[in-house]
Amino acid sequence: MVAIILVEPQMGENIGATARAMKNFELSDLRIVSPRDGWPNEKAQNMSVGAIDLIENAAIHNSLKSAIADLEYVYAATAASRDMNKGYVLSKNVMQEAPMQASKVGVMFGRESSGLNNQEIAYANKILTIDTDVNFSSLNIAHAVAVICYEIFQAKNQPRKDLDHDVEKLAAHQELEYFYEHLFSVLEKKHFFKNPEPMQQKIRNIFTRIDNLSHKELQTLRGIVTCLDKR
Amino acid sequence: MVAIILVEPQMGENIGATARAMKNFELSDLRIVSPRDGWPNEKAQNMSVGAIDLIENAAIHNSLKSAIADLEYVYAATAASRDMNKGYVLSKNVMQEAPMQASKVGVMFGRESSGLNNQEIAYANKILTIDTDVNFSSLNIAHAVAVICYEIFQAKNQPRKDLDHDVEKLAAHQELEYFYEHLFSVLEKKHFFKNPEPMQQKIRNIFTRIDNLSHKELQTLRGIVTCLDKR
Repeated sequence: MVAIILVEPQMGENIGATARAMKNFELSDLRIVSPRDGWPNEKAQNMSVGAIDLIENAAIHNSLKSAIADLEYVYAATAASRDMNKGYVLSKNVMQEAPMQASKVGVMFGRESSGLNNQEIAYANKILTIDTDVNFSSLNIAHAVAVICYEIFQAKNQPRKDLDHDVEKLAAHQELEYFYEHLFSVLEKKHFFKNPEPMQQKIRNIFTRIDNLSHKELQTLRGIVTCLDKR
Repeated sequence: MVAIILVEPQMGENIGATARAMKNFELSDLRIVSPRDGWPNEKAQNMSVGAIDLIENAAIHNSLKSAIADLEYVYAATAASRDMNKGYVLSKNVMQEAPMQASKVGVMFGRESSGLNNQEIAYANKILTIDTDVNFSSLNIAHAVAVICYEIFQAKNQPRKDLDHDVEKLAAHQELEYFYEHLFSVLEKKHFFKNPEPMQQKIRNIFTRIDNLSHKELQTLRGIVTCLDKR
């Protein structure tokens, strides 16, 4: 199952169109972070046509963090090339690139006007990009959702990327959050941060790049931080 | 170059969204058959965002026949399974299936409410279909256009289907029309038609299924009809 996360969507029509495209391609887990015009949204309902069930069951969140807490692998769908050392995956490889044992994958999409910001992208394991004309690369958000859902559906019967080590339960994003909280509080205490926000973003971008980070490995990382924190 | 043909589109927003998706994926040849709300259409202009040039240059036609006259290979994009002996192509194979020497390919899309009718589909060489959830297969028209344009763009550098015979200039649809006119007038004269409309549709469906019908071969067919018509 793949979740679609809309981050601060502005127009109800696009939320409705997203629900419809998801249902066309057999997806149902819609999560919305702080929709601009509140919730419920009549325009979203009208535009969803036969996918009103997805609108009614959409999970509304106040933060991206809570929206992706249970997910094991998260993509940030964005066209812009970012000065961020994060891997890119082309839309056609969306499922082949997601690690095989990740049972909970999500794709997040940004605002119509400005997409996802770097802070939000830092939460993703990889950037998911749709190949377009380089001179006209800004896709309508519902079109981008439709293309991605289409590719997820096409990939249903394709084998997913396998691992060269034993399959272990992956760490969910919530666990990673606990790790960051722990790490950041220790670093804070030791006056590591001059400017916390950009540095924390950099740190997120390092750890989200660890492919297939398992629950056990994350416990090891936490153990390391605890150990280093001891006098 | 691939043309997108919208047949009697009802909402200007969808025409605008179509233009935008086309431009995202480097297409520019937009043709519209009898738009419901006339032309120009302000909603189409507004929704096209940066693709206003495609809206301004869109070719408006009064008939499907004239909209596809210069095309050599035409797809009918439709989800419905039709009781028609016509080949299906999946969206991901849209360009690989189009014959290599067809320099002018088109994809036609139907009305929002009811899609393409059988008479219109009869003009197509093949049906182009997007794999969806079988229980919720009706795509928003702009989503369908976006997915098809996306696949056309992805296929840009892929090899197209080759032929096992020498490359010949393909017959354009206009030439096929002359052939039908000729054939139908001869058949009419000889009282072949009890009910012309459905029978002509059947005949179209036979000849549009001839893969890679060349200009020369079509001349041969016309010669046959002329010959048979002689006393």
